[in-house]
Amino acid sequence: MKLTILQEQLKRGLNIIERASAKSFSLPILNNVLIKTEKNFLNLISTDLELAIRWCSFAKIEEGGEVVTPINIFSNFIKLLPNKKVLLEKRDNFLIIESENIKNQIKIFPPEDFPIIPQIPKEDYIEIETKSFCEGLSQVVDVATPSQTRPEISGVYFSLQKDGLKITATDSFRLAEKTIFPDKIKKQTGNKEASFILPQKTAKEIVNIFSEDENNIKIYFSPNQVLFEDQIIEIPHPNTQLISRLIEGEYPAYQEIIPKKYQTQVILNKNEFLNQIKIAALFSGKVSEIKFKIIPQKNGLEIFSQNIDLGQHSSFLAGKIKGEPMEITFNHRFLIDGLLNIKTSEVILELNKNDEPAVLKPMADSTYLYVVMPIMVGSSK
Amino acid sequence: MKLTILQEQLKRGLNIIERASAKSFSLPILNNVLIKTEKNFLNLISTDLELAIRWCSFAKIEEGGEVVTPINIFSNFIKLLPNKKVLLEKRDNFLIIESENIKNQIKIFPPEDFPIIPQIPKEDYIEIETKSFCEGLSQVVDVATPSQTRPEISGVYFSLQKDGLKITATDSFRLAEKTIFPDKIKKQTGNKEASFILPQKTAKEIVNIFSEDENNIKIYFSPNQVLFEDQIIEIPHPNTQLISRLIEGEYPAYQEIIPKKYQTQVILNKNEFLNQIKIAALFSGKVSEIKFKIIPQKNGLEIFSQNIDLGQHSSFLAGKIKGEPMEITFNHRFLIDGLLNIKTSEVILELNKNDEPAVLKPMADSTYLYVVMPIMVGSSK
Repeated sequence: MKLTILQEQLKRGLNIIERASAKSFSLPILNNVLIKTEKNFLNLISTDLELAIRWCSFAKIEEGGEVVTPINIFSNFIKLLPNKKVLLEKRDNFLIIESENIKNQIKIFPPEDFPIIPQIPKEDYIEIETKSFCEGLSQVVDVATPSQTRPEISGVYFSLQKDGLKITATDSFRLAEKTIFPDKIKKQTGNKEASFILPQKTAKEIVNIFSEDENNIKIYFSPNQVLFEDQIIEIPHPNTQLISRLIEGEYPAYQEIIPKKYQTQVILNKNEFLNQIKIAALFSGKVSEIKFKIIPQKNGLEIFSQNIDLGQHSSFLAGKIKGEPMEITFNHRFLIDGLLNIKTSEVILELNKNDEPAVLKPMADSTYLYVVMPIMVGSSK
Repeated sequence: MKLTILQEQLKRGLNIIERASAKSFSLPILNNVLIKTEKNFLNLISTDLELAIRWCSFAKIEEGGEVVTPINIFSNFIKLLPNKKVLLEKRDNFLIIESENIKNQIKIFPPEDFPIIPQIPKEDYIEIETKSFCEGLSQVVDVATPSQTRPEISGVYFSLQKDGLKITATDSFRLAEKTIFPDKIKKQTGNKEASFILPQKTAKEIVNIFSEDENNIKIYFSPNQVLFEDQIIEIPHPNTQLISRLIEGEYPAYQEIIPKKYQTQVILNKNEFLNQIKIAALFSGKVSEIKFKIIPQKNGLEIFSQNIDLGQHSSFLAGKIKGEPMEITFNHRFLIDGLLNIKTSEVILELNKNDEPAVLKPMADSTYLYVVMPIMVGSSK
């Protein structure tokens, strides 16, 4: 193998593929990157066995081949080089790297020791505007939670239906659902209804890697694997591919718990609401509880918290109220998480009984909702 | 006690005094702030028993008094309030805080439980441009190191001499010395020669607190304590005071180890040198060693490093050389620390034998020098 590539381009690829490499003591080969030529292209490949990333770029290939080398040292070294041409060459048992007055050799391992990256049949796929997709995914991904007993909810649920793609996550105390309506879906082949559970780590890395991408993303799915691939218009080749295993199991029938009506509706300025919750949170007790008293006659709500060791707090926040007066207690962290995922300046809070799920949603935006369980009054100390 | 003050002003004070409060389980009173009125002023006072900070501001005092309240909750709460007037009032066993629609009470402790802050006789002092002082201090403070056996070198040594103020720190492998020449010293009373050892933590906090201050700083010293105080021209009162204990003991007679001559002198571009060291550092061995080969005929130096598990590295860096060819090995971290404290674009490296201390200093700037011990060749692996 012998090739040259610009330092900046190589660095861009390393920033991406580093995200899948594992720091594994039991399987040290995962701490490496596979560098592999393919016609006029250089591939960088990394994997932690759950997620694999392949990054691909034009390069000046003088001699084809492949090497496996420790990803940390290779990446840290390349990132410190000046933005000049970098020569990568396999010579004996070393990868030689040369740039200007710098000459370097790093040890390599046999490419056959590197795990095989699964191939996904390029059949059924869906193509979506990358920005909308990543923004939607980012609004739900953090709600999922690792669970040994219910591995399904450790992942993010993708459900492709006639009226769009629904992306959902829950930790059983709250649930976030984003709908990507058909206008953002650019192309779709195969079965119009399908679903899969994506590991949370993969979902997070998709957001990290693609969220600045102005093009479309293609999602190929097979029963056990899924492939996310960018579509760069200028080059006839995907630049970055994420291949991930899927989580087996049946996702909970969550639609049943989303309230379809409300007894009290409150419309609030989102930032004011968020700030008042953060302040009250400082004085909340053992179960992070803060109490809300919705007072239609006062056109607003009172917020209370009390901590036996610190002191107590109250404040008033004005809002538009429809429906009944109500007292309800929430875990402040659950509310804050939901509010941070809402992008509009006004937010709607819909309540039923004080022991039934409530709904937070953006004003005039039907693509997102966040369902949250209150804390039962008996348990709030 | 009853007073009002603007939120932004109070927040500014809390950001400063928080730095001295301790998270102490054995002496929980140190986790508190003492809030105390004095004529038209509000004082905030915190201490960890080594360092005390007093911050002072005009406020609208309706009723004088003092309270002691947990600093974390008070500070976090104040920082989240809008920038409006804040009322602070002692009522029964609580500090009442009110701002707009927010009402709060935090528990308080008896002021007599709060440690007494030592008074320093306002006699001998030196007054220095704050910016020059903080910049100089920041160039040496990180070199000091906690030492049980030699407590003197855990601190920063201040030595006031006829030709200026010398500020020195060492960890016995390297030593940094900054001279503040008399032109930056605005005023001086009492004994013209004096010295003390300041705890490293106090020195760091001085840099953190005062480095943006455009005025002068006054340093009052007594045998066991020192007081640093800002001089704000607009108000006839210091705004911030740091009172610190001093470290007892005799500072090492370090002048003897500063080389007075050199066998080889190299002038290098500082950023290039720093970058080449960082790159070579990736491949250094167990004792962080990298080797330099100074080659006068080539007008530059070669840099080598080798790590048996990773690979090896070499590079060439051009420079201006006077004197003999030489091979010498350094701990890369010690060189990097020194270079980061040098602000000029060119740097001078002066070497004698390869087992004798070397000197790094800025080009055309006699206020700073950094002495560093090489690694003996025998011990470099």
